[in-house]
Amino acid sequence: MSVFLAKGTRDFLPAQMRNRQWVIDRLREVFARFGFEPLETPAFERIETLLGKYGEEGDRLIYRILKRGKHAALGEADLALRYDLTVPLARVVAMNPQLRLPFKRYQIQPVWRADRPQKGRFREFWQCDVDTVGTTSSVADAECLAVVTASLEALGFEAYTVRLNDRRILTSLAAAAGAAHREMDVLVAIDKLDKIGVAGVSEALRAKGLADDNIARLWDSLDVPEDNPGALASLEQKLDARGAEGVAALRDVLAAAEHLGVPTSRLRVDPSLARGLDYYTGPVFEAEVVEPAVGSICGGGRYDHLIGMFSGRDIPAVGVSLGLERIIAVMEAQGMLPGAQPTARVLVTVFDDRTRTRSLEAAAVLRAAGIATDLYLGEGRLKNQLKQANARGYPWLIVIGPDEVAAGAVSLKDLTTGEQEALSLEGAIRKLAGQPRPKG
Amino acid sequence: MSVFLAKGTRDFLPAQMRNRQWVIDRLREVFARFGFEPLETPAFERIETLLGKYGEEGDRLIYRILKRGKHAALGEADLALRYDLTVPLARVVAMNPQLRLPFKRYQIQPVWRADRPQKGRFREFWQCDVDTVGTTSSVADAECLAVVTASLEALGFEAYTVRLNDRRILTSLAAAAGAAHREMDVLVAIDKLDKIGVAGVSEALRAKGLADDNIARLWDSLDVPEDNPGALASLEQKLDARGAEGVAALRDVLAAAEHLGVPTSRLRVDPSLARGLDYYTGPVFEAEVVEPAVGSICGGGRYDHLIGMFSGRDIPAVGVSLGLERIIAVMEAQGMLPGAQPTARVLVTVFDDRTRTRSLEAAAVLRAAGIATDLYLGEGRLKNQLKQANARGYPWLIVIGPDEVAAGAVSLKDLTTGEQEALSLEGAIRKLAGQPRPKG
Repeated sequence: MSVFLAKGTRDFLPAQMRNRQWVIDRLREVFARFGFEPLETPAFERIETLLGKYGEEGDRLIYRILKRGKHAALGEADLALRYDLTVPLARVVAMNPQLRLPFKRYQIQPVWRADRPQKGRFREFWQCDVDTVGTTSSVADAECLAVVTASLEALGFEAYTVRLNDRRILTSLAAAAGAAHREMDVLVAIDKLDKIGVAGVSEALRAKGLADDNIARLWDSLDVPEDNPGALASLEQKLDARGAEGVAALRDVLAAAEHLGVPTSRLRVDPSLARGLDYYTGPVFEAEVVEPAVGSICGGGRYDHLIGMFSGRDIPAVGVSLGLERIIAVMEAQGMLPGAQPTARVLVTVFDDRTRTRSLEAAAVLRAAGIATDLYLGEGRLKNQLKQANARGYPWLIVIGPDEVAAGAVSLKDLTTGEQEALSLEGAIRKLAGQPRPKG
Repeated sequence: MSVFLAKGTRDFLPAQMRNRQWVIDRLREVFARFGFEPLETPAFERIETLLGKYGEEGDRLIYRILKRGKHAALGEADLALRYDLTVPLARVVAMNPQLRLPFKRYQIQPVWRADRPQKGRFREFWQCDVDTVGTTSSVADAECLAVVTASLEALGFEAYTVRLNDRRILTSLAAAAGAAHREMDVLVAIDKLDKIGVAGVSEALRAKGLADDNIARLWDSLDVPEDNPGALASLEQKLDARGAEGVAALRDVLAAAEHLGVPTSRLRVDPSLARGLDYYTGPVFEAEVVEPAVGSICGGGRYDHLIGMFSGRDIPAVGVSLGLERIIAVMEAQGMLPGAQPTARVLVTVFDDRTRTRSLEAAAVLRAAGIATDLYLGEGRLKNQLKQANARGYPWLIVIGPDEVAAGAVSLKDLTTGEQEALSLEGAIRKLAGQPRPKG
């Protein structure tokens, strides 16, 4: 067989699709509960809409689509595949001045990046983005935290932490360390603290030209109490006015989050959280699963200068992106997914011309009653049909043989227990309908 | 503003998205009820997987993706965007020998074609495909008809017709007209009967070199009674053995469809239905909405030689493709969509520091009760908040001002009637929960 998938892409076969759909449906439900509205944008954009928005590396990783028709021979690209959901949102906001601000939207779509495929990293992967555009209100930031925690809880996560910081605290930290002019270097280095530890980050900062006493001052600023009020008070004392703005913003967000019902024991102020991205302007946050320790599964923050990129003016925004692939991988590893339940709950047998009509009619009645029903396609011995029902994991089999036709009944077989009983079709439907589909 | 969508593509803003999601959810529900399993494939495939599968015109319309990295400069393409959902299904079947046949799958995903954009025709559009792979059973064909009629009914279509034919009848018709060697020419010409009439088709056939008496014989064969048994009997009499096979197949399919509960009054045998595609091998069908007369909204048939293209052996298959864009356009024109209901059902006011905490807490309780709730972001006069709730089409407003805080109550305002009453928050929730979201 000489046919392959494109590198870094996957098919989602039924068992996986059912799980993905289950997760996406839960997320949609949570996003809607918080009043976020659905949005979808095309898979490709004009290439100039995307180029130059993601830095040099981003430009390299963008999939480019060849011009068509008489231009095809030139090898030139005029379109590019969606790289994230934020730039398309900025384009939508610019093109639709009729949208009422604040605009609360969610978007669940694949993005494509020509990255080196690795374990758990794909070239086609789904993002679930939730953003509020057009307000500086800290309640909007708090709603993002509330959406994150509600989403994780709707999916069944119990042990998770959301780390919080503010871009202005990071800016101020860099200044306090005498590295105001290399803020991004400091951000990038600190971001790796979890992975490379204090010694590794210090080494990286030294390589960037920071003096040892500056680095020592940085570690001193980062050394704050574990509790949130204590951490904020400590930072307020150590940092400059800009840092104090960040502290005040985090206090507002934490208070609003608490009133919005966010379990505040999950939230932890962490001045070393950098999120590695230059475009954040205010609070930033990142959720990670504690058990198993797989790192970040979603993150976001306030970015007040990005959404206006096509509009020619600043438009404040705050949002969060949930990484569907990572979330599903963790849930799968933890046995948190509903499992490979098939769509149909029952197989109706088909034997021969004498019984076939009754089988088809029974399937029609079951389906009309809302019961997902498979029908044996073909004619065969009971043994084979039973084998097929078991192989597909259906919990029930309805046997309609000559005896059942003669009696005007069906035999309902419970494939878990092996028990079988003769019932009217209506009785079988009552039994199937009363039995909720198992979740385990 | 100098930012545009790529030609032939669309954004789906919230009002449209809600409708699309509603339609897709209904279809998913129907497909599942019939025991079809979900499948998704990547947006792009290796270019050799797609090229040469859709004829010369298809190859021209395929979007090609440039090689990346050091090959990028060559202008060569190694990937291509999905053009339909059938070739990817064939690839999935070839790559997954563990799939149990018959494999009943549905797939709801966008496809991309670099076609000339026209009214109602886009370069990115969604297909909803339902196929049964691996069986020649006529029950599988009948299930496709049942899925089509159940889907149309679940969406609220009342006046529709499903026309039916069989490829072998068409082959036999071409032979009877002395044009066995130009079967495709005859198919393509007959396919336009609805658009260009008998004179137009005759003209087209003459242009292809058919003699007048051959054309007359063709019209004579096509002239069959209106009722299905009469039409089939007439065809059986006029056509050769191959045509008789088609007649027998249609009789089987019609009988099975009837037992599966398909409203047979909707089904009409029409020997002129050609579907324009060379790959059908057995029964073909096409559903059209009678009122308004917009033509076909879905179609399909049996194609026993295509799915095996990558497997090196014939694998029988039958399926149907529902055109989401056409269906939504018709439903919109007919006022059949649920309409632009916003996601949130209630806006909770936020005034100032004295009342804000209570507002946030109320929003949290409403959301926890499963009520989609928007929260006024910012602080403003009641007038502005009321205006925003009305502009967004929310049916309810919950006012929490100093009076409400003092009384430990909320004011629930019905924005349709303008009536307002003081209630406990729990009382408001009962009222909101008891009131199903209006569908009109």
